[in-house]
Amino acid sequence: MLRRAAILSIGDELALGQNVDTNSQWLAAELAARAVHTIEHRTVADDRAAIAAAVRELAARVDALVLTGGLGPTEDDLTRAALADALGEELVPDEAALEWIEANFAARRITMPASNRLQAMRPRSMQCVPNPHGTAPGLVGTLERCVIAALPGPPREMQPMFRERIAPRLPVDEGTDVLLTTTVHELGLGEAAAAERLGELVARDRTPLVGTTVRDMIVSARIRAAGPAEAMRAAIDGEVAEIERRWHPYVFGRDEATLAGAVGTLLARAGKKLVTAESCTGGWLGKMIVDEPGASGHYVGGWITYENALKTSALDVSSTLLSACGAVSREVAEAMASGAMAHADADFALAITGLAGPEGGSAEKPLGTVFVALASREQNGIDFVTRRFRFPGGRSVIRERSALAALQMLRFALLGVAPDTPMLFETLPVETPAAPRA
Amino acid sequence: MLRRAAILSIGDELALGQNVDTNSQWLAAELAARAVHTIEHRTVADDRAAIAAAVRELAARVDALVLTGGLGPTEDDLTRAALADALGEELVPDEAALEWIEANFAARRITMPASNRLQAMRPRSMQCVPNPHGTAPGLVGTLERCVIAALPGPPREMQPMFRERIAPRLPVDEGTDVLLTTTVHELGLGEAAAAERLGELVARDRTPLVGTTVRDMIVSARIRAAGPAEAMRAAIDGEVAEIERRWHPYVFGRDEATLAGAVGTLLARAGKKLVTAESCTGGWLGKMIVDEPGASGHYVGGWITYENALKTSALDVSSTLLSACGAVSREVAEAMASGAMAHADADFALAITGLAGPEGGSAEKPLGTVFVALASREQNGIDFVTRRFRFPGGRSVIRERSALAALQMLRFALLGVAPDTPMLFETLPVETPAAPRA
Repeated sequence: MLRRAAILSIGDELALGQNVDTNSQWLAAELAARAVHTIEHRTVADDRAAIAAAVRELAARVDALVLTGGLGPTEDDLTRAALADALGEELVPDEAALEWIEANFAARRITMPASNRLQAMRPRSMQCVPNPHGTAPGLVGTLERCVIAALPGPPREMQPMFRERIAPRLPVDEGTDVLLTTTVHELGLGEAAAAERLGELVARDRTPLVGTTVRDMIVSARIRAAGPAEAMRAAIDGEVAEIERRWHPYVFGRDEATLAGAVGTLLARAGKKLVTAESCTGGWLGKMIVDEPGASGHYVGGWITYENALKTSALDVSSTLLSACGAVSREVAEAMASGAMAHADADFALAITGLAGPEGGSAEKPLGTVFVALASREQNGIDFVTRRFRFPGGRSVIRERSALAALQMLRFALLGVAPDTPMLFETLPVETPAAPRA
Repeated sequence: MLRRAAILSIGDELALGQNVDTNSQWLAAELAARAVHTIEHRTVADDRAAIAAAVRELAARVDALVLTGGLGPTEDDLTRAALADALGEELVPDEAALEWIEANFAARRITMPASNRLQAMRPRSMQCVPNPHGTAPGLVGTLERCVIAALPGPPREMQPMFRERIAPRLPVDEGTDVLLTTTVHELGLGEAAAAERLGELVARDRTPLVGTTVRDMIVSARIRAAGPAEAMRAAIDGEVAEIERRWHPYVFGRDEATLAGAVGTLLARAGKKLVTAESCTGGWLGKMIVDEPGASGHYVGGWITYENALKTSALDVSSTLLSACGAVSREVAEAMASGAMAHADADFALAITGLAGPEGGSAEKPLGTVFVALASREQNGIDFVTRRFRFPGGRSVIRERSALAALQMLRFALLGVAPDTPMLFETLPVETPAAPRA
């Protein structure tokens, strides 16, 4: 049997929607990785009675209950008092925790405000857990057979405390069952086609269980298997391999993998370098590439030629071409890529020019029209693969999709995938004949 | 009395931590804007009994219950059946909804899979709500005195359905009380100093109620007031003005406002233009600026000079200077800003060079060391304000903080704030004398 957990987040700012709760997702994933199945998340306001009631109700149904938030030194930090209520205990001062908090302030040469003494209080049967990244100690204890841990709300304090101090105290599974999850991502195939290719894999009576989710242009297959460890690991690996086969060549990675990371690995393996030239994305493509550690091995850098004058002065895009074809055109995308190649020592150039809105757009080139040019340095000159997209969505969505599509185009080239492989949101080639390059 | 609501999210992918639930935050904020106070969020897995139990338990305590997710056509979409269980009713087909779903498929020239018929089923006493952005109709009805609405999970379907079809059916407040919330943001003061300047404003017995939250370098004051509408609006406005006074000049905006947006407004007002030169941020600064609609009015573009060779070839940073001072130095930051000014028609240039890790760093220049140079075109030449920071955090945090700090430096210049105004994470000036510029 898998162990069961619940997560309780505390805070007015969460209940009222002033902040998004990301802690619960992080904790649920960490628990799943330790074969603990989270059956419920709950968020309540800074209300002592509501917190205590939720603790009692959840602790009766799960093996582990993890609370976050409400451990600060202010009057609206009520987790300690609510836990004492739920346990039917009084709050007592913890001398070691108080010393630790005082030392912490002393090290920063700050006089400890009296209110911080409150943070060294604990329900009698619970223990304080040191916090190396803040002033609020955590708490750990039990209510009947349920392990209860209370962690500070800021992720940089909560995460190490959970991993180092709480995870080792979680109830260990007595059987051999584990809960394994993984996710496989694709870009460019689209939700409908991705689901069609998965076919019978998504039936609800199969192990592993497969479902899909979509975020922007990325479709992800979520795979889950519960059972004996070895068999489940083999089942998950087999399922991943099958999905990779069905989603080829659009599938680019698992779990935390990004498309920029996949491209970076391929560039590094080939010993090739990339330069970028961006207009509407305004640096987002560069940011995605540099988000990956080790980008300096394969990324030269690039240009953000947002104004047309900079396209001309920095990348030699002729003003004649800009007038004749418009800044959002196949010709200008290719001229930007050419200019980037001419001004940097690189094997590939990616150039993006498009209409992200909110204003602009015409019947011929509606909002969302984006041209992406990939230039590759070949023995006899420079080859181009250029695609025209029409991305649905608002300004930010169009820009993110443009950068992702550009990365997938480069990935296809690095893998030797045919350049006419269809991609989601691609539109027909421009019918006007290409203008001569300046 | 304010009306009370709860939000129930449904889905294995949420409970297990494979996705972050952003719908609940969005809904809570929308409800708050309509004077409905969300007291609890809950997330349960795709488990019919668990969903039904949560519906019964929450509906007994609130005036409105909003569910999201579990309305799709697959076997793990159990919201309809669970609602029928909670209401003690049977599921019946809704002819109008079925026709609407069939027409939807016909318009896309797709044969409707039999499974989609399930989406036209409703508990007998509930009504179907059309979905213009997907195939899943919503549901709305009542359980005792609680209004219950079930919405699809994808935000682009959920949000318009909530605003257009559900919000008008929410229980209207019978008194004159409203719940107003707003948030005020600062960057560069830091959490401790920001809290100290707020002083007595954060006492728990005041109206409005003020609390603070921190995300990266941005400290936000959350302000909340419940009571008669006119008085509360005045109280909130007064509180915002007082916080703006206390946090001057670091405070840059309210609610959805961004630092890049605040800088953009100031640039537009002054009729000035900006160019950027980025190394470790890799385009993130440009992206932040272009994230704001209307950026083309004041942003020329920029360079991502990630490799040193590109700093030299594109921005004329001499290789002698790079060898003598290192790429991460005051001198190179200023040379990058100079080069950007020389190659673009702009009034300001922001240049960033730093060590974001995960590798590199030395005793003299540890990881997190970042130089930001702001060049301003003056009558007699170019003025520089350059700051050295040491940002804590990992690669991504260091890079985001660098871009934000750069924007705040430009904002200070546009407002005429003294250039020696201290900023969070700034370190002492470099002691070595400046090398001659190439």
